[in-house]
Amino acid sequence: MGPDSPEITLSIDGMGGDDAPAIVIDGLAIARVRHPHVRYVVHGDEAAIAPLLENHPDLTTHVQISHTDEAISMDDKPSQAVRRGRKTSMWRAIDSIRQGDAVAAVSAGNTGALMAMSKIQLKTLEGIDRPAIASLWPTELGESVVLDLGANVEADAKQLVDFAVMGATFSRIMTGLKAPKVGLLNIGTEELKGHDEIKAAAQMLRDLPLSMNFIGFVEGDGISAGHADVVVTDGFTGNIALKTAEGTAKLIMAYLKAALGRSLLSKLGALLAAGAFKILKAKLDPRAHNGGVFLGLNGIVVKSHGGTDALGFAAAVDVAVDMAEADLINQIIKEEQVVATVGEGEMTDGGAQSDSGAADKTAPAAQ
Amino acid sequence: MGPDSPEITLSIDGMGGDDAPAIVIDGLAIARVRHPHVRYVVHGDEAAIAPLLENHPDLTTHVQISHTDEAISMDDKPSQAVRRGRKTSMWRAIDSIRQGDAVAAVSAGNTGALMAMSKIQLKTLEGIDRPAIASLWPTELGESVVLDLGANVEADAKQLVDFAVMGATFSRIMTGLKAPKVGLLNIGTEELKGHDEIKAAAQMLRDLPLSMNFIGFVEGDGISAGHADVVVTDGFTGNIALKTAEGTAKLIMAYLKAALGRSLLSKLGALLAAGAFKILKAKLDPRAHNGGVFLGLNGIVVKSHGGTDALGFAAAVDVAVDMAEADLINQIIKEEQVVATVGEGEMTDGGAQSDSGAADKTAPAAQ
Repeated sequence: MGPDSPEITLSIDGMGGDDAPAIVIDGLAIARVRHPHVRYVVHGDEAAIAPLLENHPDLTTHVQISHTDEAISMDDKPSQAVRRGRKTSMWRAIDSIRQGDAVAAVSAGNTGALMAMSKIQLKTLEGIDRPAIASLWPTELGESVVLDLGANVEADAKQLVDFAVMGATFSRIMTGLKAPKVGLLNIGTEELKGHDEIKAAAQMLRDLPLSMNFIGFVEGDGISAGHADVVVTDGFTGNIALKTAEGTAKLIMAYLKAALGRSLLSKLGALLAAGAFKILKAKLDPRAHNGGVFLGLNGIVVKSHGGTDALGFAAAVDVAVDMAEADLINQIIKEEQVVATVGEGEMTDGGAQSDSGAADKTAPAAQ
Repeated sequence: MGPDSPEITLSIDGMGGDDAPAIVIDGLAIARVRHPHVRYVVHGDEAAIAPLLENHPDLTTHVQISHTDEAISMDDKPSQAVRRGRKTSMWRAIDSIRQGDAVAAVSAGNTGALMAMSKIQLKTLEGIDRPAIASLWPTELGESVVLDLGANVEADAKQLVDFAVMGATFSRIMTGLKAPKVGLLNIGTEELKGHDEIKAAAQMLRDLPLSMNFIGFVEGDGISAGHADVVVTDGFTGNIALKTAEGTAKLIMAYLKAALGRSLLSKLGALLAAGAFKILKAKLDPRAHNGGVFLGLNGIVVKSHGGTDALGFAAAVDVAVDMAEADLINQIIKEEQVVATVGEGEMTDGGAQSDSGAADKTAPAAQ
């Protein structure tokens, strides 16, 4: 939105992330230029944050420091974090949205602690059993939304339907598409393949009049091929897929580097093509896709990658601003009412039993 | 093995694969040079196969055609294939090992049909509930074994332990390592993370005196980083991980091509570095890692990729020869006796209930 947009306030965990608070403040300086109408409450150690603000005089009018001594470390377990967490910058960042002082929170801290605290403070939306983590995934056609990336280790049919609703809402806001293509991640595109939960979720998504174009199943290679605008899966599979993709990208870049270094000629070639490799690196730059959104809570929480820099943190702020200004929460609530009204009864047990077949459980998947 | 190795016979599905029987016969011509002591019974349409043999006069002494008119198509569902399959080249290729006429079977046909027929004809080994599909995966350190890649859509703790035993045996044969590093694929490396099945399997693998070095959990990016020699997971997750990696590789190569084509300078650079790109392509060539092994059956069945060429088919034959000569089946049986003896009782229900905790089910995973 432009400079005439109504002022909004974001709540920032100043101490989350490997290089906090420096990357946070430098990130906000970038965000200030992009979103001049946004104000920030930064929770954290004033003695550490105030000097950083001196480097960005323009930012001082946009940032208010809310001092606290304590912070969650990257190694804190979620349960520990919650127990001793009420004075931490992370807890307070979430508390700000609960109090209505801010419309969204951003943290580059520990994911597990952030999700645990968010659930306790914000609670899930009515009708949603479990929140999910969604993020953008680069594809051959642009970007797709993938969720759940690891908020839960399993999901029943109803929860997969919720994830589809929430992911489609995220996609509508990010892309402007009225009915994004939604697919369920599976080991084949035929109707008979996969877990019972997935088959039952597919049936519900076919039947419900939701604001999406449900296209059925998408396979692992269909994510980066861009077969769907939204790819829905449980948090275990989603997390494995995400990290496998990251590992594969790393492996290929290592292969490429080694191959280019093997002869004088290819070293020279690499030098001439340096511009192209820069473009490739930018395409694969995780900072460009930074900002995992916690969906399904009574409030907007955006998780920046812990190892990110100022540019990556600013990208996470971008996502938070988009979500807040598009009224993410109410859009999800509206769609969830369709699920609740139409699907009542048949969906309470997840429908997992309705479509079972012992033979399918051992049906091979690899082609 | 060298030319003095004892003669063995492989059974070949001559009609499986997109370009069969041509790639099969051309593949055997390559394999003949590598393994002069191996003979082949090729099941399929004699009228199609015999003329192809004329191109390879050296091969005629090594190949015996076993004629049959029928073949399984790539689109046949497993259940259809089994019903009408007894006269097909695929069924007969498996039957040859059941009859003792061959020590291993190779097919580039439909995976689902091949697994269904293999289970019916060969049955699983004593103590093994379910077979798994294993294959080599390129890593920063070389190659690792990953399984299950899609024989089943789920696995309980005992089955994951079986997969670990079978994968470690595969790895010992391929690498010569006495105690390969074995890891369970999970969404975090901490003990508390993941499904109950995985946690219970980890406990069993820690306790059992198996011929492996169990290293605990491996994350998605740990596969291609080479954190383990053997990565164990259920067939749903394994299939998604494999295809996500394939899709990511394709995406990056598309990015690279587009980036290199954007300026004259980078086009020139690409030309000079052509040798390097050839090396990169060879590194990523799926033919080099072709040959998914069906583990856990009373017989060795190797699945070649359906879209492969002669070189890829020859790689699948390599794997079959290695497995047969190293006596894969008896090695698995020996290790499974350790599982059966030590783990009796506690393992019959998969141990899945023993380690449960509702709180962990929603513990966030993404870091």
